[in-house]
Amino acid sequence: MEQEPLIPLQGWRRKLYIIIFEADTRAGRNFDIMLLLIIVASVLSVMLESVASIREHYGPQLQLLDVAFALFFTVEYILRLVCVHKPMRYAKSFFGVIDLLAVLPFYIGLFIPGSHFLADIRILRLLRLFRILKLTHYIGEAQQLKRALIASQRKITIFLATVIMLVIILGTLMYLIEGPENGFNSIPHSIYWAIVTLTTVGFGDITPKTPPGQALASVAMIMGYGIIAVPTGIVSAEIAKGGASPQPEVRSGTRLCPHCFSEGHDWDARYCKYCGGRLPRPARGTVS
Amino acid sequence: MEQEPLIPLQGWRRKLYIIIFEADTRAGRNFDIMLLLIIVASVLSVMLESVASIREHYGPQLQLLDVAFALFFTVEYILRLVCVHKPMRYAKSFFGVIDLLAVLPFYIGLFIPGSHFLADIRILRLLRLFRILKLTHYIGEAQQLKRALIASQRKITIFLATVIMLVIILGTLMYLIEGPENGFNSIPHSIYWAIVTLTTVGFGDITPKTPPGQALASVAMIMGYGIIAVPTGIVSAEIAKGGASPQPEVRSGTRLCPHCFSEGHDWDARYCKYCGGRLPRPARGTVS
Amino acid sequence: MEQEPLIPLQGWRRKLYIIIFEADTRAGRNFDIMLLLIIVASVLSVMLESVASIREHYGPQLQLLDVAFALFFTVEYILRLVCVHKPMRYAKSFFGVIDLLAVLPFYIGLFIPGSHFLADIRILRLLRLFRILKLTHYIGEAQQLKRALIASQRKITIFLATVIMLVIILGTLMYLIEGPENGFNSIPHSIYWAIVTLTTVGFGDITPKTPPGQALASVAMIMGYGIIAVPTGIVSAEIAKGGASPQPEVRSGTRLCPHCFSEGHDWDARYCKYCGGRLPRPARGTVS
Amino acid sequence: MEQEPLIPLQGWRRKLYIIIFEADTRAGRNFDIMLLLIIVASVLSVMLESVASIREHYGPQLQLLDVAFALFFTVEYILRLVCVHKPMRYAKSFFGVIDLLAVLPFYIGLFIPGSHFLADIRILRLLRLFRILKLTHYIGEAQQLKRALIASQRKITIFLATVIMLVIILGTLMYLIEGPENGFNSIPHSIYWAIVTLTTVGFGDITPKTPPGQALASVAMIMGYGIIAVPTGIVSAEIAKGGASPQPEVRSGTRLCPHCFSEGHDWDARYCKYCGGRLPRPARGTVS
Repeated sequence: MEQEPLIPLQGWRRKLYIIIFEADTRAGRNFDIMLLLIIVASVLSVMLESVASIREHYGPQLQLLDVAFALFFTVEYILRLVCVHKPMRYAKSFFGVIDLLAVLPFYIGLFIPGSHFLADIRILRLLRLFRILKLTHYIGEAQQLKRALIASQRKITIFLATVIMLVIILGTLMYLIEGPENGFNSIPHSIYWAIVTLTTVGFGDITPKTPPGQALASVAMIMGYGIIAVPTGIVSAEIAKGGASPQPEVRSGTRLCPHCFSEGHDWDARYCKYCGGRLPRPARGTVS
Repeated sequence: MEQEPLIPLQGWRRKLYIIIFEADTRAGRNFDIMLLLIIVASVLSVMLESVASIREHYGPQLQLLDVAFALFFTVEYILRLVCVHKPMRYAKSFFGVIDLLAVLPFYIGLFIPGSHFLADIRILRLLRLFRILKLTHYIGEAQQLKRALIASQRKITIFLATVIMLVIILGTLMYLIEGPENGFNSIPHSIYWAIVTLTTVGFGDITPKTPPGQALASVAMIMGYGIIAVPTGIVSAEIAKGGASPQPEVRSGTRLCPHCFSEGHDWDARYCKYCGGRLPRPARGTVS
Repeated sequence: MEQEPLIPLQGWRRKLYIIIFEADTRAGRNFDIMLLLIIVASVLSVMLESVASIREHYGPQLQLLDVAFALFFTVEYILRLVCVHKPMRYAKSFFGVIDLLAVLPFYIGLFIPGSHFLADIRILRLLRLFRILKLTHYIGEAQQLKRALIASQRKITIFLATVIMLVIILGTLMYLIEGPENGFNSIPHSIYWAIVTLTTVGFGDITPKTPPGQALASVAMIMGYGIIAVPTGIVSAEIAKGGASPQPEVRSGTRLCPHCFSEGHDWDARYCKYCGGRLPRPARGTVS
Repeated sequence: MEQEPLIPLQGWRRKLYIIIFEADTRAGRNFDIMLLLIIVASVLSVMLESVASIREHYGPQLQLLDVAFALFFTVEYILRLVCVHKPMRYAKSFFGVIDLLAVLPFYIGLFIPGSHFLADIRILRLLRLFRILKLTHYIGEAQQLKRALIASQRKITIFLATVIMLVIILGTLMYLIEGPENGFNSIPHSIYWAIVTLTTVGFGDITPKTPPGQALASVAMIMGYGIIAVPTGIVSAEIAKGGASPQPEVRSGTRLCPHCFSEGHDWDARYCKYCGGRLPRPARGTVS
């Protein structure tokens, strides 16, 4: 819906648009697969460059690759801007921002050494794949997960607020009980320990040494045990609910209103809900 | 409900009450937002004071802030006592106790050094926010979570009793198998290890060194794996039960078709999907 | 049901039985509460004795207490044997075995030093409390949890079998990749590491040092992440199912068949399912 | 189903087939039980050989056992190939591949030292047990778990893709914040840390040392806390859906009242609870 008005109506810009933004033509599909490979290669190259022993041997080659990838993504970004009708709308869209983030770290890295490693944020560009390769089923499922998370948003906010208050109080108590001599250097540091403990991560870089500290930690861990049940319960219940009515939009299928070309009609609708026109009867077997 | 009879009927005490306790007027709302900021600032100040490097440089300033915050909360507490009709009832209420706890640590800290750090228990005062800022939706959800926890209270008690017996027996066995020479200094210390292990926290400050100890630990960990499923299952089931009711109306609203009296129209529908008749426009603000 | 035929019909043994085994009379209740306190005290005494610093100062006193508790439990065990009609049936019952286990460690400790610490297995005697103090609601809930676990027994067996095969293969691979020089001393030791990792305990006493080892560990951890979902899912589903039909035995209520005095009739039964006699109509409100 | 056409129709190969592949005859069952014991023994022998102290004392004996087991499994594999009608079809089947994997490591170990430890992949042969010993109930449950996992395959893929993007970005940020001087040697190493942290394993071999690093780690851990809820929710919902059907018949059996044709009688009912008529006796073995 949001993408259509972006398409230029004719000329080379339209051809470019179809190759770069869509995947229905042979050229478009090839471009997308090439893009996918280049993204993965550029992320791997950034990762390898960060390994000291590899950097020693292949440093210059990897830096050359870095420049090449950055130039490619820059050109691609400019082409994307050029071939759409309303460049600003693309630039401000979700994928437009990610495309920009894929090139920025390289140029920032010219001034601030090290920050070019951030270039592997390019991995986020793979998100576009879901849309490009028409993995509609996956989009449906992702939408369902998203809905489940949004539906339980308030419960999760309450849960997080409770956890934050809990770790502040727990951290303060442990700081007073154990103190800097046992590694609990400050209240923020103790709060970090409380989070490590309540989430059951348990690095073990700071641990209670005194019996009262260990007793309080024991109580905290058993509480954490119970607390871990809450978000799981929330999300389980939401997914179970969502899964019970098998994905409405999939169910409503692909019927187009022949009068106003709107989509998304319920499977039991007889009239278009947007223009009031008579809808065609659903084809047999559409509701699976 | 419980708060109403506390309100004095007239005079400056009534005005003060409305500012301090309520948030419907402009003055009341401003007071609450100011209070929120002061609470957060005072908690941050206590946290920063506990960091040795910051204390060295800004110790006197932070102590001054501490005194200022303590005085502010003391005056506020006294005003709250003064402006309600039945001060004792307020003082003994849940929020009354928390308001007192917010000022006590400072005065105790005058006699027992270090205990003034407990002042960051003030963070609990943020709980009042939920009530004050009319976050009724959140209260509803919190109630639901609370109900789910209360409904599964007995199951959780049984679960906790089982876990406690388990860690006592496991701790004793590990103390006998590994002994003080491998870090299992005493039975309480071993029980602490058993809790760290069964809750999957796994600090690693104490670990089994002997093969029989590692074998027993392996069994305990796999058991812990199964045990972690129980509270999650309990809470999931409760939330799923409770969560079944309150969603639907958010989804499709309450619009009736004036022509065929059918319900369940989407919020963006303009025509009835059953008879094709024009639907009334949705009331403002119904879709939040 | 199983306890009745144990009661002697008359004399001092019957009186003793009512005091020791039951909790309906004042004397019986007092005895049970005293027993509860002595059990907790004896477990605490064993725990404290294991702490080196306490043993140094109060060793003789704690050993004296130990002897006193052991004598008390021995006398109690003998009295229980004496006052029931069929001592062997009691001795072989679940609680009979636990009562014996509560006294044995002391006598074994006379020959094998250290084993008297096992005396804190006495904590299991608290299980009797649930029955004694008529905490029938808790028994109902415990039964429900038990049923949920039994119903998912086969799924859990399959799950455990899968986990065991997985940790053996994972442990072997890590042993070959990392080897004894990185702390993976042997295959059993590597399997111990695999269990510590898959259960998300993560002590950190052994960790992969080589890049291939860390890569394999990463895959294992993400798998463990998915695997932890399985038992939780199994138990959640069972509890949700059990919780939906609110505890059949509570529902079937307390109707006695007036012809054969059998219990446990469904709430919708009109005839006794054991003797075919007409049942009384259920009292209003029995089905809550 | 797939196995039938493999059976030779007559002669000694048919007899061998029935002994080796089936478990219905006395000889077949004895062979399977012997095979089970030899598999377990050979896996234990491989494990023990990897323990340095045992290898020192019993090295030659264990190596002899190794050779014996390898020869036995080789002969068995050849016999399996010989006695089926279409050897290639068996060799390419799931269990055919596992049977080959059970003998290969020994022969590879003759050339590459150490790789014979992989022989404990033989443990996978136990999977055949489920089929052989007619544990149909277990197969049913395993199928159900498998279906639940397959049904949630797409959701799990989306989840994994999200986690992988997250750990790459998190690892890069931590590498930039903490750097090699705090143990975050390279981006792949930091990604390993991110996986250890998000999965709540928390080895503690690498931990953030700087305050910004600890702050980011805290956010990551609380996110991990929420993320762990997602796969559990997915699998719970699937199992709950799948698990709804197959329980009831176990509960109340299939007895019809011959008088009023009502169903749902308890297994221990002797009279119809709806009409009071005599019920037929339950068939033997229906209640398992």
